[in-house]
Order: sequence, then C-alpha cells, then structure tokens
Amino acid sequence: MGVIQRREERFAHLPVGVRLRDGLSYFASATPARFAVLIFVGLIVVFTVLLLLPGMTADGETTDFADALFTATSAICVTGLSTVNMATHWSELGHVIIVIATQLGAVGVLTLASLMGLVVSRRLGLRQRLLAAGDVNPMALNKGGSSDSPASRLGEVGGLLATVALSALVIEVGVALLLLPRILLEGVPILDALIEAFYFSAMAFTNTGFVFSESGLTPYLDDVWFLGLLMIGVVLGSIGFPVIYALSRNLKLRKIKSNRQARWSLHVKLTVVTTVILLVLGAAAFSILEADNGSTIGGRGPFHLGFQALFMSVMTRSGGFSTFDIGDLNNASLLVTDMLMFIGGGSASTAGGIKVTTIAILFIAAFAEARGNASMEAFERKIPGDVLRLAVSVVLWGATTVALSSIILLQLTGDSLDRVLFDVISAFGTAGLSTGFTASLEDPGKYVLTATMFMGRIGTVTLAAALAASQRRQLFTRAEERPIVG
Amino acid sequence: MGVIQRREERFAHLPVGVRLRDGLSYFASATPARFAVLIFVGLIVVFTVLLLLPGMTADGETTDFADALFTATSAICVTGLSTVNMATHWSELGHVIIVIATQLGAVGVLTLASLMGLVVSRRLGLRQRLLAAGDVNPMALNKGGSSDSPASRLGEVGGLLATVALSALVIEVGVALLLLPRILLEGVPILDALIEAFYFSAMAFTNTGFVFSESGLTPYLDDVWFLGLLMIGVVLGSIGFPVIYALSRNLKLRKIKSNRQARWSLHVKLTVVTTVILLVLGAAAFSILEADNGSTIGGRGPFHLGFQALFMSVMTRSGGFSTFDIGDLNNASLLVTDMLMFIGGGSASTAGGIKVTTIAILFIAAFAEARGNASMEAFERKIPGDVLRLAVSVVLWGATTVALSSIILLQLTGDSLDRVLFDVISAFGTAGLSTGFTASLEDPGKYVLTATMFMGRIGTVTLAAALAASQRRQLFTRAEERPIVG
Ligand SMILES: [K+]
Ligand SMILES: [K+]
Repeated sequence: MGVIQRREERFAHLPVGVRLRDGLSYFASATPARFAVLIFVGLIVVFTVLLLLPGMTADGETTDFADALFTATSAICVTGLSTVNMATHWSELGHVIIVIATQLGAVGVLTLASLMGLVVSRRLGLRQRLLAAGDVNPMALNKGGSSDSPASRLGEVGGLLATVALSALVIEVGVALLLLPRILLEGVPILDALIEAFYFSAMAFTNTGFVFSESGLTPYLDDVWFLGLLMIGVVLGSIGFPVIYALSRNLKLRKIKSNRQARWSLHVKLTVVTTVILLVLGAAAFSILEADNGSTIGGRGPFHLGFQALFMSVMTRSGGFSTFDIGDLNNASLLVTDMLMFIGGGSASTAGGIKVTTIAILFIAAFAEARGNASMEAFERKIPGDVLRLAVSVVLWGATTVALSSIILLQLTGDSLDRVLFDVISAFGTAGLSTGFTASLEDPGKYVLTATMFMGRIGTVTLAAALAASQRRQLFTRAEERPIVG
Repeated sequence: MGVIQRREERFAHLPVGVRLRDGLSYFASATPARFAVLIFVGLIVVFTVLLLLPGMTADGETTDFADALFTATSAICVTGLSTVNMATHWSELGHVIIVIATQLGAVGVLTLASLMGLVVSRRLGLRQRLLAAGDVNPMALNKGGSSDSPASRLGEVGGLLATVALSALVIEVGVALLLLPRILLEGVPILDALIEAFYFSAMAFTNTGFVFSESGLTPYLDDVWFLGLLMIGVVLGSIGFPVIYALSRNLKLRKIKSNRQARWSLHVKLTVVTTVILLVLGAAAFSILEADNGSTIGGRGPFHLGFQALFMSVMTRSGGFSTFDIGDLNNASLLVTDMLMFIGGGSASTAGGIKVTTIAILFIAAFAEARGNASMEAFERKIPGDVLRLAVSVVLWGATTVALSSIILLQLTGDSLDRVLFDVISAFGTAGLSTGFTASLEDPGKYVLTATMFMGRIGTVTLAAALAASQRRQLFTRAEERPIVG
C-alpha cells in the first residue's frame, strides 16, 4: 500500500501518456515473470487466430484449432515441431505470418530473458547490468551508476530491444546473403531464392528449424558451405545475446587497435567453453554410435560421418534442422540427443533447454565438492552459493515438466519411451527435432505437447527471474543440522 | 611422510597384534572410500569363486563365469537381478551361499555407510556420531566426548557392527516367525517352511528380492498378511539404520514412561517424511496408470488395485519382489518406476539409489530459492549449504552412471529405451525388478550390468564419504562473479 501511494503521489503531476508508460514499466519491472507470460500468451492467441483464417492454407480450408494452436506456439516459442507439413499445408501468406511469429518470439525472448535474468530481478539499471554480463570488463561496469526511475527504465527497455533486434537483423541478413549464391546455383529464380535464403537464415538464427521449401534440405544434404552457414546461424542464435555482445565488442576493440585488455566476463567464458565441450562430445558420440548406420550418417566415409555428426550435434543445441530421418537413429543416439536437447543453449538466447551455464554450475559444484574447496570457482572467479540453488531449481523444473509430459503422453498413446521422451524433450528444449511421434498425435496429445513447448520456452526464463527477484530478509536464524546425503 | 613417521613412532612400543589392528583401523579411517571398495571387491571375488564350484548348481554343471560373477555381485550388492533362474539353477548349498552373501552385503553396507557417511569423514568419534544422527536428542549427543585413538576407534567399529548385525537378526527372525504360520497353511513341511520363511524374511529386510522357492510368490499373490509382512521387512531395511535406531529408542523411552521429550533428528524426520510421500505418490500413480491393465493389477476391484499398487510402490524403494510380470506394465508405469528406483531408499540402509534425503535436499533448495530465503530450512533447522553441493554431486554421479550404462546397453542390444533404462536403473538403484531385459543379455551386456550394480551400490556411499572427507583449506579468496542461469 505504502509503495503504491508513494508512486501515485510522485506521478500525479505528469501527463496521462507518461503516466501510462510509467505504469506499464512499473508493472513490467515489479512482476517481470507475469509480464513475460502475459506477452507470450497474447502473442500465441493472436497468431492462433491468424492461422485459423482460411487464406492461410494452401488449399483454402480452415486449419483445425489444435493444429493452429500448436503451430502458433511452436513458432512463437521457436520450437520448430509441427503437426502438419509446414511446406505444403500453409499458403505463401501463412509462411510469412509464421516467419513473423518466429521473429517476434526470438527477439521477444532474447529481450525478456536479458531483461529478467539479469536486470529487473536485481533492481539495477537495465542496460548497464545487461551489457556488463557480456562486457569486456565487468568489474568496471558493475560499478556504473544505475538510473532507477520508471521513465529511464522504459527507455532502457526500448534501447535494449532495439540493440537485440538490430543484432538479429544484421546476423540474419549476413547469413542469408552468404546462402543466396548456393541457392541460385540450384537454378531457383532470384526472387524466390532471396526469400528462401532469408527463410533458412531466419529459421537458423531464431533456432526454429521449420523448413518451408518443398524440397527441404534435400539439395544441400552434403553441402559443407550451406550446412556450415546453417550451423553458424544456429550457434550465434543459441549462444545468447550477452556473448554476441562481448564478441562484437571484442572485434571492435581489435579494429581500433585499443590497448585495453579484452576480458570476457565469467558468464561469457562459461557459455563458450561449455558449448564447445557439448558440441565436441555430441559429435564424437554420434560418430561412434552411428558409424555403421547407413540410414543416417554412417557408411559414407570418415569426413561425411564427422561433418554430419557435428551438424547433428549443433542442431541439438536447439536448431532443429536434420539431414536424415531422426526416427532412423539408433536408440542409443536418441538417448544422447535427449540429453543434449535437455541442456539446450546459452542463457538469454533463442535456444531452449535448462541452458549450458546451468549444467556447468552443477559440474563446478561437484568439482568443488570433490576437491574439498569451500567455494565454487571457475576462471579464477568465485561463484556465489545461491547460483547453485537457482541451477538446481531450474533442473528440477525441467525434469518435472519432462517427466509429467512423458508419463501423460506414454499413457495416452502407448508409444515407446524412445519416441515419446525424444519428442517431449525436443518440445521442452525447443529443439524441434522429431522421431515422427509429434506428427502421429491425436488432439489431446497435441495439447499436452503445446503446453510442454510453452513451459520449456517460458518456464526456465521466468522461473529464473521470478526466483532471483524474490529475495526475502531472514528475521531470525535457525540451529544448523546436517542430514546424511547419498 | 610426516604423518607416517609420527604414526610409526607412536606405535613402535606396542605388541604386533595391536599394531596390526591399529594399522588396519588407521587405513580404514584414513581412506574409508578405498577401504569400502576393497572389502566389496574382495567379497565379490570370493563368492564368484564359490558359485563356480560344481556342487553349487542343481544339475552339477559348472556355472558360466559371467553368470557366477553377476549372481555374486547381485547378492553382495543386494540388487536381486539375475541372469539365471534363481529357484532352479542353484543347489540347496548354492542357495545357502547366496543368502550368506546377501547377509554379508547388507550388514556390510549398513555398517560401512553408517561409518563413512557419518563418522570417519568428519573425524569424530564413530559410535557417538552415528547414534547422534538417529538419536532422540542430537544436540546433547553431538557434544559428547569423542575418543579418537585408533584402538578405541576399532572398538567402536566392532560395537557398531554388532549393533547393526543384531538389529538385522532381530528384525529378520521376527518377520520370519510371522511369515511361518502362513507358509505352513500351504501344507509345506515344518523344516522347509522354516527355511522358506527365513529366506523370504532375509530377502525382504536386506532388500534383495531373490525368490528361491519354485512356486515363487504365486501362492501369496493376494495375501494381505504375507505381502504386508514383506512390505514391513523391505521398509525397515530400506529406511536406514539411523532411523531404526531412533524408532527403537523412542519405543524404549515410551516403555519406561520417561518424561524426556522424544525428539527425532532432522535426518530421521526428512527420511521418514520423504519415504511416506514417495510411497503414497507411487501407489497413487500405479493405481491411476494400471487401473485398466488386467495383466498387472487392474480390473479386480479398488482394494486389489490399491493394495497391489502400494506393494509395487514399496518394492521400488528397493525391495525387488513383484506379484506380476513387470514387462506387462504400461510404459508410463515403467517410467514412474524408473524415477522411484533412481531415488531409492534411506541413507545407511540396505536400499540403493541416490537416497531419499538427497532428493529432499534438492527440493528444499528449490523451495528456499522460490521463497527467497537466504538459507535452506526444514523442520525448524537450518541445513548447511555444502550439503546441497554433496547432493548435487551424488545426483550427477547417478545420472552419469545410468546414462553411460544405458547408452552402451542400447547400442549392444538394440533393445528399446523402456526396457533398457528400467533394468539399468534397477541395477543402479539395487531394486532388482526386471522387464526381462537382464535375462536376455549376452555376456558383454552382463558385464556392463554387473559394473552398474557395483557402481550403484558402492558409488553413492563411497562418493558421499570421499567427498565429505576431502575438506581443503582455502589459501586465498577470489573475486565473486555471478553467471546467468536458466
Ligand atoms: K528449434
Ligand atoms: K533389491
């Protein structure tokens, strides 16, 4: 009550427009988690309605509600799973609408994640704090003044949104222009090729993985240039905005030959190192497990095997493209993919999953415990103990969501755990790869998987923010007691 | 070097016997994890050799090495999985040897777990500390003097071993005597009935789950008395020695009508509450998921459904008996069972898994994070932050073991994840339930599952002890930095 009154007094003399803006900003920063959920639910409702219009389908028929909701959610959450054939079911206009949805979803989640995970929750200046996490010298910027009035806060949100959108545009256009010549080589007319190049680039950077052309990836299955560009797009999208910012800052410093030492923040180092480790481990695992599987990537020489295994490994980060039928993978490879998709990509990125820093924190904790260190450390920095609690919360949330969704879908369909768990984790981690299970679902199953996609995309981000935001003061201390563990 | 020299000097004047005893005790307390592994490896080797003798089999043939090793490991680790028909493959003598192995394994692991988890690692007096964890008033006993000389330590180990063995004997004989009349009712001769009653009781309390009689559980499938007693035996075995000690102490206090308030330690409360929650959740899940499955527990009325669901739920704690073919469970029930078996039973118990307190700590951490509390709390006690690190380490170890074993076995056999994951987690959590996958294994697969049983039984216990023991002093502090998580 006191807070609200004070706010009323402070703003009473301002014009209505400013008050509305400040009110919105206040709501966004006071309950960032609820704000994020509202925005995403709103976007999904709008795009479901749009996709239900008759002009959206190739044959002019109205799409089933369950399929429209599923597609809208899959697009907004940049998941990439589909219950209809994405290339043939929708009209040209439908494709445009879906691409717009993925762009809004990707930029929206990038911005929200950046805002919430880093900033609003800790009650600090938005932009400073976000840039600090990706900055070359975090110690200096951390002490930068934070302007905390609602008006300046909304200005910061706007600035951040613009920066994120601009980065996305620059990368997507860059990748599209590099893809273009290769598509022209296939004899595609220039305008169609431009659209196709941009579609592929957007689906890669946003980590969606929809394929809109009827031939799909078929012409480029062995093309190192084409697949390589898709990989770069997916990695840049999945590594997270703070890391992209740090990399571009680094590039700038080098260009002007600055003498300032380019230092990466702990977050950037952790993300980059864990991502590289996961990519290498994934590629190695797929190379070994699929070496003899001629239906997927085996039996065509070591270069083909290694390159395709790396492509597959990158796509689990949560790109979602595939050069073969995922259902043909050995069951062991499906399990490896499950694990990689569950981990997902970087924080404040277009990728999903519990995030690479989360798993890194768990291993750092175990390592510290094994060495008997009193504190968790990485790259000569100490990591506060409450970060581990946050990581454990995110993993428990993810495991619970995946378990519940799997149990319900197993019981609904009677399908095998191999197929169900794969598509559920793909939905949760917004990876978008599928064994074919998703396409076989009836309406109740589609709704369960829609909910799983939403939980996976919104859950970890808002959970982390909501938890980080709710710092209570302890009024008294308890006697300490140690239970046995393990 | 310094430590060894000082020890030599201290003991030089003592007789050889005492020096040997003290040396053994010193080794046991200096490297408790290695000591435990050595003891278990030794026992497995001895019993493998014994089971390879021709007189051990019913038909007089020598057992295959892989099967003898598997059976010895399964018995010593009280897992209960088998690659041969336990009732028909072995001779009477073979059965006796296997029961002895399970008794040694159960009492051994109880003692070692109690010793290591609680005592040696923290460099405190053995018996005091152990009893404290199960005691009615831990605060008073924690301050009890600890006698720390090697000789008194070995005395304490002996005392503890005796206490554990006595408890095991009392409970096993008690349950056996209550089972006896029911077995006699089946018309079994008195001597055979006595042996059978003791076998069932021992297999329940040690949480092994082998069935030696050819008719198996068939005569008792609907018998509330018989199955109820098995459940009591399994729960008492799986809840852990500290809890049993607290319960018996409580009973004693009530008997003498003491005015001392009977207070349970945090460990006892956490274990009991989490066990009850898991039993109820498991029974509810099986009731719902199997209600329509006539091959398992469905279609025979609500009492049958509820009782059998509870029995199944108790057996996942890691009893391993089953009243129907596990392979007939719905896939959703298999996944639920996987989760329950992975968690397992109480610390310092005959049960396996990551232990109920471990999962409780994770949820308490997430709950504290959600409420924004600075410290983890349960039952009006504060839990030290390093307990969470230990819990995370144990879970990571378990997840890694299960994942690696599953990937290898999936690739070796090409079987489905439903069946492979179930038997792998059953081996890791020493539950002993099987979909039939274990019996279908070739030799390489048997070795992988043998290793999984060993890792599951010895791993969590020694890991927790080894980690808790390795407390290093920090020589300098690092600058603190907070990565983004989730
Ligand atoms: K995706
Ligand atoms: K068992």
